[in-house]
Amino acid sequence: MLISAAAFDASPTAGQTLPLYQRLAAHYSTAIVLGTLKAGERMPSVRELMARHDISLSTALQVLRYLEEQGSLEARPRVGYFVRAMGTGLPLTSEPDLSQPVQPNPHAHFVGINEHISLLLERGRQAEVYMDIGGCTPPPELFDHVFLNKTVTRLLREHPTLLSQGRSLLANQGNHPLFQQAMARRALASGIRVAPADVLATTGNSEGVSLALAAVASPGDMVAVESPTYYGLLQVVESLQLQTLEIPCSPRTGMSIEALELAFQTQPRLKAVVVVPDLQMPLGARMPDEKKARLVALCAAYGAALIEDDSYGLFVEGAQVKPLKAWDSASGHVIYCQAFNKSLAPGLRQGWMNGGQWHGRIQMLKFAQSRNTQTLGQLVVAEVLGSPTHQRSMEKLRQQLKRQREAMARLVARHFPVGTRMSLPSGGLCLWLEFPQQMSTSELFTAALARGIRIAPGSMFSNSGRYEHCMRLACTHPVNELMERAMKDLGAMACQQLKQSPRS
Amino acid sequence: MLISAAAFDASPTAGQTLPLYQRLAAHYSTAIVLGTLKAGERMPSVRELMARHDISLSTALQVLRYLEEQGSLEARPRVGYFVRAMGTGLPLTSEPDLSQPVQPNPHAHFVGINEHISLLLERGRQAEVYMDIGGCTPPPELFDHVFLNKTVTRLLREHPTLLSQGRSLLANQGNHPLFQQAMARRALASGIRVAPADVLATTGNSEGVSLALAAVASPGDMVAVESPTYYGLLQVVESLQLQTLEIPCSPRTGMSIEALELAFQTQPRLKAVVVVPDLQMPLGARMPDEKKARLVALCAAYGAALIEDDSYGLFVEGAQVKPLKAWDSASGHVIYCQAFNKSLAPGLRQGWMNGGQWHGRIQMLKFAQSRNTQTLGQLVVAEVLGSPTHQRSMEKLRQQLKRQREAMARLVARHFPVGTRMSLPSGGLCLWLEFPQQMSTSELFTAALARGIRIAPGSMFSNSGRYEHCMRLACTHPVNELMERAMKDLGAMACQQLKQSPRS
Repeated sequence: MLISAAAFDASPTAGQTLPLYQRLAAHYSTAIVLGTLKAGERMPSVRELMARHDISLSTALQVLRYLEEQGSLEARPRVGYFVRAMGTGLPLTSEPDLSQPVQPNPHAHFVGINEHISLLLERGRQAEVYMDIGGCTPPPELFDHVFLNKTVTRLLREHPTLLSQGRSLLANQGNHPLFQQAMARRALASGIRVAPADVLATTGNSEGVSLALAAVASPGDMVAVESPTYYGLLQVVESLQLQTLEIPCSPRTGMSIEALELAFQTQPRLKAVVVVPDLQMPLGARMPDEKKARLVALCAAYGAALIEDDSYGLFVEGAQVKPLKAWDSASGHVIYCQAFNKSLAPGLRQGWMNGGQWHGRIQMLKFAQSRNTQTLGQLVVAEVLGSPTHQRSMEKLRQQLKRQREAMARLVARHFPVGTRMSLPSGGLCLWLEFPQQMSTSELFTAALARGIRIAPGSMFSNSGRYEHCMRLACTHPVNELMERAMKDLGAMACQQLKQSPRS
Repeated sequence: MLISAAAFDASPTAGQTLPLYQRLAAHYSTAIVLGTLKAGERMPSVRELMARHDISLSTALQVLRYLEEQGSLEARPRVGYFVRAMGTGLPLTSEPDLSQPVQPNPHAHFVGINEHISLLLERGRQAEVYMDIGGCTPPPELFDHVFLNKTVTRLLREHPTLLSQGRSLLANQGNHPLFQQAMARRALASGIRVAPADVLATTGNSEGVSLALAAVASPGDMVAVESPTYYGLLQVVESLQLQTLEIPCSPRTGMSIEALELAFQTQPRLKAVVVVPDLQMPLGARMPDEKKARLVALCAAYGAALIEDDSYGLFVEGAQVKPLKAWDSASGHVIYCQAFNKSLAPGLRQGWMNGGQWHGRIQMLKFAQSRNTQTLGQLVVAEVLGSPTHQRSMEKLRQQLKRQREAMARLVARHFPVGTRMSLPSGGLCLWLEFPQQMSTSELFTAALARGIRIAPGSMFSNSGRYEHCMRLACTHPVNELMERAMKDLGAMACQQLKQSPRS
C-alpha cells in the first residue's frame, strides 16, 4: 500500500461540495487509475482507513462500499476488498428511475429515428476517418479467416453443386438439416428445447427480430424496448410502423420489470417486448436468472411476445448464459434470435431463430419476403461452430476484447472529463459512457468527425432524447498508438465542450 | 408432304360439332405432334389444301391462319407457311377479357393466399416425390458449378478476410463497389442509366420487390399485379397487408393497359404496379416496346410506382430485352429489380435493385430489416457475369431450356386431354396450361402427389380463383424416361378427371 495519508487533502477544494467519503473514494480511484493500486491488490481495511485518514467507522465503510458500487473494488467475504481488473476509478453508469416507462421527450424535434440514424451513419461514412470507435463489429484480424476460408473450400469440394442448388432440393424451406441440427444442439446445451425442424435460418439478426415483430404486431401496435437500446432495433420498429415504448434499464440487471408491468397495465396495444438479456446493447447489463424467470412469466401473463436477441451471450466471459427461452415452457411466447456476425464471421451474415407459437407465421413471412437464406453460410456456421478450433478462437476473441475494453476504460479515465461515468460489462464489444448532463454528444460527434474520429452519440440509442450526454464506445479495435491519440483527442474535445481543462 | 387426303375424315364424328376448318387444323396438328410434319418443313399451300381436301379458298385460308394463331405454323411472306419448332398443334392460351381489372371470386373461400400457398408447398414437401414439375428452378447440373466454385476459391485467396469483414469496411452500406459497377454497366447496356452508388444488393428478388412495396405503399393500399402472377408476389403483397388488384394479361403481350387505366381511375389507393415485362411469370408473355412506353407513361401520369422484375429477361432467346426502366426519364418512378437465382446460381441468392425516386427510403428499410447482403455473393456475381465463360454457359442454358420446353410441349400434346391449351413463350422456364373449364387442378395436384408427381396448380397464381383449370408446367428438368412416365401418368389422371379416355 503506497498511498500515504499525506497525499490526501481532506479539505474541500473550491467549487467542490462532495461529501468526505466521496472525495476519499475519488482519491483511491485516482490511485487505481494511475496504477499505484494495482488490479488484484488488497485495499486498506476499515481500521486502516479510519486510522490513516482520521475518519469514523461509518465514513470508512461508505468509502469502501462506494468504491465497490463503482466497480473499482470487489468484496471477498471475510478477507476484505480487492482492486478489480476493470478498476478505472470512474463512477458507474447511473441507475435510472426504474419505476415507469420512459416518456418521449416532447421537446425533441422528432423526424423519425430511421432518418436520424441514417443521416448520422451517412455523415460518418462520407468523412475521412482514421479511427472508428462508433461501430461495434470487430475488425477482420480478430477472426480466424484462414480456418473459415479452408472450411468454405472444403465444403465446396465435398458438395460441388452447393451454390447451384435452389431450395427445392433441401428439406424445410431452404433450412439445411445440418444447420438445423447444429443450432438445436447448441440451444439444448443452454437449456432450450427446439426441434431441428423448428430452426429457421436468417440473414443476420436484424432479419430475425424484424420477422418476429412483423409476425406478432400490426402497424400502430406498441413494442417495449430497453432504454437505451441498439439503434438497429429502433429502425426495425419504425420501419414496420410500430410504436416504441422505452423501458428503463438498470446498467447491471437490465430492463425494469416494474416499469414493464406498469406499461402492460396502461398500454393495451403493447404486443411485444424485445430484450437482449445478456450483455445488453449498449449498457452491457446482464439480467440475473431470477429476473429472467419473472420477465418470461410477466409476458406470458399479458399474452405478449417476448423477443430475445441472444447474440451477445456468446461474449460473456467465464460463464455459460441461460437464455430467456429456457424459461419458456408450454406457451411458446418467447421468440429466440441469435446471430454469428460478431462472433464468427461478419461477412457471412448468418443467424437463426425459433418463433415459438408464431414460428409458422414467421416462416411464412420469411418465405414471402426473402425466400431462403444462402445454404453455404448455413453449412459454414454448422461446421465451424462445433469445432475445437473455433472454441479456441472464440476464447481468444473474448480475452482480446477484455484486454481492449480494459485498455479503453483506462484511456477514458485518463483523458475524459471529470464526472464521466462508465458501464462495467462482464464481456462484450463496447462501453457506455455518461458525461455530465450539460454535454452534447451530437456536438461531440460533429467535432470528432472533423478530426477523423467516428463515435456513436447517445441520440442513436433512444427516441426519448435522454441520452444526449451519453455515447457508446466501441472496444473492438486493438489499443495502439493511433487509438491512444484518438482517445486523448476525443477526451480533450469533450473537456473543451464542458469548459474543463484537458486532463492530460 | 406425307399426309394424304385420305387420312383425313371430313365427316363430323359423334359429339363433335367443330367447324370444318378447325377439324382440318386438328388433323394437321396431329401430324405435327406425331412428327409426320417436322419442324421447319413447309406446310401445303392454299392451293394444295383446296385441291387435296376439296375445300374452298376461304376454308383453306382459315386452316392456315388458325394453325398460325395456335403457334404451330409461322408465315414467311411470299414463301408460305412453315412448321414452327414449338409446333405442338395445341391451341394457344386464350386471350382473357382485357377491358377491366379482375374481380375477386366472391364465392372463393378466401383464407389468405399465404396460407393457401404455404399449405400446398408444405403438402408438396412432405410427399414422396419422384418428379417435380411444379418448382421452376433449374436443377444443379444445368449450372456451371466448376466455374462457380473456382471463382469462390480464387476470391477467398485474393481477399482472405472477405468473410471476416463487416459492412463498416465497405463503402455504401455493404454494397460492394465492384458489384455496383458491374450491375450499373449491365444496366447501361440495356438502356438504363444507374449510377453505381445507386445499386442496392438484395437477397434474391423477393427481397427487392418486398422492399419496393414497403417503401411506396402503406397497409391497406392497393397494388396492381398481373393475372395470373407468380405466387411469391401474392405472398409479399399479403405479408405487407396490402391489397392486390389483378389486371388481366394477354398471353402474348402482357398486362392490359386499358384495364390498368380503368383501375387508376376507380381506385384512389392504387399506389404501385408490379410487372414482369419479359417472359411474364407464368404466362411467358413479352410486352412489346411500344406497350412498355405506354405503361411507363401511364404510371407516371397517375403518380404510381412501377415495380419491374427483370429476372426473366435473361432467358429471352435470341434477343436483348429493353427493360421498362429504360423509358423512365426524369421522374424516377420505375423501380428496377433483378435476381440471378435462376440464371447464374440458385444457391447464392443474389440480386440487386434501383429504387428510382424511392431509393433512399428503400436503402433505409433494407438496412433496418436485414442490414447488408453478403459480400461474397456480390463479388462472385460481379466476377462471373462479365466473363465469356458465363456468356457461353448462359447460351447453353437457354438452348437446353428451349429443347426441354419443346419436349415437354410435345408430351403435353401427346398425353394431355383434348381441349388443353398452352402458352408459347419465346424463352424461359415454364409453360402455362389451360385445361377445359370443368377441370380442377387442385384435385389434380392431390391425385398427382399421391403418385409422386408435384405440380403447381392454377390456384397458386391468383386470388381470384379463375385459374382453377390451369397449371404451370416447369420445363427445368431434362426430359428423360422418368419424365415421360410422369407426363404420361399426369395426362392420364387429367383425362380421367375429365372423363376422357387416355390419349395414349
